[in-house]
Amino acid sequence: MAEIDFKLLADADSRSFKAGETIFRAGDSASEFFVVQSGAVEIRIGDRVIETVPENGIFGEMALIDAAPRSATAVAAGDVKLVPVGQKQFLFLVSQTPYFALNVMRVLARRLRTANNAL
Amino acid sequence: MAEIDFKLLADADSRSFKAGETIFRAGDSASEFFVVQSGAVEIRIGDRVIETVPENGIFGEMALIDAAPRSATAVAAGDVKLVPVGQKQFLFLVSQTPYFALNVMRVLARRLRTANNAL
Repeated sequence: MAEIDFKLLADADSRSFKAGETIFRAGDSASEFFVVQSGAVEIRIGDRVIETVPENGIFGEMALIDAAPRSATAVAAGDVKLVPVGQKQFLFLVSQTPYFALNVMRVLARRLRTANNAL
Repeated sequence: MAEIDFKLLADADSRSFKAGETIFRAGDSASEFFVVQSGAVEIRIGDRVIETVPENGIFGEMALIDAAPRSATAVAAGDVKLVPVGQKQFLFLVSQTPYFALNVMRVLARRLRTANNAL
């Protein structure tokens, strides 16, 4: 799990979602990823929950990496608080904190293994 | 595609494989990833070719990121020349060259989108 140093995100405003609320939908254009500050978020493709992202986990990072639309839908599994991180801050984190970059890679690699196993 | 600055890899010895030769198999333990210097490499899961990695592309990076066994089999699609990159060099590239880290993320994100679309 990618653990984020919240001090680096001090300027970001957190956003709250109630259980069942949609955070973004597959196909949406995207300009930020999210750190789960509290609660959990379900990542869905169609009706299938492909992942539940827990506290301190990240999601939505793919759209920042390849500038393509959201590949999945994100729904609040309970009441959640999220810290959004924009493109500029993302690039700052990648260039200044190699552990952040490695953590994002770990998240992607884990998701890819899960997806490959399901093929 | 992750384009690698070969100057950074000057010390690495390249390795050659003939068409049809197996570079690694799913389940193998792993300590390096590969840059395709010339030729192309097929990434297979079971009988399915999930990707063909062209010149300057990378593969085998997942095992360096999460230290798990190879998730797929890599086979030389023609005569290929590969530059192996070990764990230490990988960490150096990630920490010193943010574009390398972003390129690895792009490769992972593209593969994940492909896998998700196949689900």
